[in-house]
Amino acid sequence: MSDQLRQERLARVALSQVFEPGDYRLSALVRQLDAVGVAEELRRQAQDGVEPEVAQRLEAVNAEGLLAQGEALGIRYVIPGDAEWPAQLDDLDRLSATAERSGQPLGLWVRGAARLDDLERSVAIVGSRSATTYGADVAAQIGAETARAGFTVVSGAAFGIDQAAHRGALAVDGRTVAVLACGADRVYPAAHAALLMALVKEGAVVTELAPGEYPTKGRFLSRNRVIAALTRGTVVVEAAARSGALSTARWAAHLNRPLMGVPGPVTSASSVGVHQLLRESGAVLVTDGNDVLELVGSAGEFAPTQTRTPVRRRDRLPIGHQRLLDAFELDRALSVDELATRARMGLVEVSASIDQLRRGGWVTLHDDGWRLTEQAIPGMQAAPSP
Amino acid sequence: MSDQLRQERLARVALSQVFEPGDYRLSALVRQLDAVGVAEELRRQAQDGVEPEVAQRLEAVNAEGLLAQGEALGIRYVIPGDAEWPAQLDDLDRLSATAERSGQPLGLWVRGAARLDDLERSVAIVGSRSATTYGADVAAQIGAETARAGFTVVSGAAFGIDQAAHRGALAVDGRTVAVLACGADRVYPAAHAALLMALVKEGAVVTELAPGEYPTKGRFLSRNRVIAALTRGTVVVEAAARSGALSTARWAAHLNRPLMGVPGPVTSASSVGVHQLLRESGAVLVTDGNDVLELVGSAGEFAPTQTRTPVRRRDRLPIGHQRLLDAFELDRALSVDELATRARMGLVEVSASIDQLRRGGWVTLHDDGWRLTEQAIPGMQAAPSP
Repeated sequence: MSDQLRQERLARVALSQVFEPGDYRLSALVRQLDAVGVAEELRRQAQDGVEPEVAQRLEAVNAEGLLAQGEALGIRYVIPGDAEWPAQLDDLDRLSATAERSGQPLGLWVRGAARLDDLERSVAIVGSRSATTYGADVAAQIGAETARAGFTVVSGAAFGIDQAAHRGALAVDGRTVAVLACGADRVYPAAHAALLMALVKEGAVVTELAPGEYPTKGRFLSRNRVIAALTRGTVVVEAAARSGALSTARWAAHLNRPLMGVPGPVTSASSVGVHQLLRESGAVLVTDGNDVLELVGSAGEFAPTQTRTPVRRRDRLPIGHQRLLDAFELDRALSVDELATRARMGLVEVSASIDQLRRGGWVTLHDDGWRLTEQAIPGMQAAPSP
Repeated sequence: MSDQLRQERLARVALSQVFEPGDYRLSALVRQLDAVGVAEELRRQAQDGVEPEVAQRLEAVNAEGLLAQGEALGIRYVIPGDAEWPAQLDDLDRLSATAERSGQPLGLWVRGAARLDDLERSVAIVGSRSATTYGADVAAQIGAETARAGFTVVSGAAFGIDQAAHRGALAVDGRTVAVLACGADRVYPAAHAALLMALVKEGAVVTELAPGEYPTKGRFLSRNRVIAALTRGTVVVEAAARSGALSTARWAAHLNRPLMGVPGPVTSASSVGVHQLLRESGAVLVTDGNDVLELVGSAGEFAPTQTRTPVRRRDRLPIGHQRLLDAFELDRALSVDELATRARMGLVEVSASIDQLRRGGWVTLHDDGWRLTEQAIPGMQAAPSP
């Protein structure tokens, strides 16, 4: 490792201890001067009496110690310039600086075998902490389906949808990564100790925050931008009217990544936020993993689900046969004469067609005349026109 | 009634007995020549040996008798030129003639007190025959809400969604109209005798088909165009992948009327068709009657539902207080010193703010320091940014 990269890494650790994640002014400065340059600049300003306490706090950080502490816990600090750095995070720096809690992360603490540069093919699945069993089932299903297709499932390890998405991916031995709003050594929420362990083992736990750091509201919001920026697209499975998942959704839209929503019953409070996204924010309605893959896969990689509009057997009949079936009545038997009149066909044609339709199981002859069979009747509800 | 209108009415009854509803070639001819003219033309062609059987069948119709039979049953035949004729049906003649089963109806048989020209403010609520209780409940709710706002609820009197929509309107003494695919004297489906009776009493039953006529598949499809054309917009509540309700939906889109869909669980086969409309056909997602009224009401008549994004009490706090709340940790108490550092605020400012926040019920002082209250924590899931 070059000494320059080492110095930059130490400077980034130090800055991350003094500034909260998502400070876009800091991010802009770092982009210009690198972290080493920013730290120097802060020290020089302090000598001129500008914000001396910031430089003092910077001086007080034991960056070497934090890196060593991380290493002891199996946590590495990945920064731009490292081979593993995920290039898609650069998009955060391309956003207008007006968004709160914006800007590229100074670095990411990573615990687990998954490499960040493998997240190029990944999808975020997020949603309410207070998920319904419906939402959790669908999240797990989509997690499994997208993981099986080779995508990494990224979420936030929270209760509800997040954990269901992770578990869905784990269930099919897929890769899944959690982005946390606290240090990668912390177990938050406490009930998810086993889940976090599994994530470290099978995927990774990723965070902007150094080991030991606690979650705060602001950190959750900053974290959401990382989830959206790391992935090719974001799926919101369930979200109440003001769910935190909607902030991840807004980041995805802001970053021009596909934003997807899974609908639910309109009677469910847990779906209100998703319906709002679908109605007002240009989110695309998705119903399963296939729908998601269609949107996040490379062009032509995943075909639209074909099962949606199956061609009915009836549609494959010759036009004359279909016309004859159309002439039938639903609650009355008809004679061949009546059918000929109604279908405007000749008697000979009707007789020949009806015999073929009978052999195909479409019509049966009763005492009072010809009737459609069950097989022919469901077609009544189908609608090839207009 | 002028003799000319009477002759035209008789000619339309006669043509409707010889041609199936939605014959766009006939419709185009009638628009050019009137029904009287078309009947004359058919007779002249027959003399030249062209389709003599059509003229024969036309001759055989007892139009006077059918009108009298209708009258005896309380069924009137309304045609263009009558004051009651709903002008919005003219839109059907403006469509390209390529659509199957297109064209303006020759006339509409009406049974019930509701006047067709009152349907200017109406909305179609349609969906699967095999509705779930969820779908039926939502259809009834939307039927009630739109009827209460003075809209006529139009549907097809079928099992499932249709009947739920009618019943929802009836439950609030609203107006509701069924468009049938058979004669207005017929009870189809048989189980809906009471519903049809109520519709005749409180609204109307409307059909292109003369008394005595039976439903067929083709007539159901033609009927759907009338439902879409009569109304300001069409709501599809539940629809399986090939539901007939989708044909009504396509007509609404074709006619440039708002097309709306109520989502449901992605695990429900009864919602597959609606999700398809929402995903691929530009249908607007609606969750209640208010959403529907917003789209079918006159501009500004119905405001968007306001409850969707309530302003949280927390958002109304002074910025400094919000910043301080953001500095809190979720699973650890903090001292005023720590809060000052984290929030980058002065000690005096923090002390003053925190006292106000305590009195507002946002924070409490514990043995180990300051913590957020329950009231402050739900806000963590909220997302004002980006």
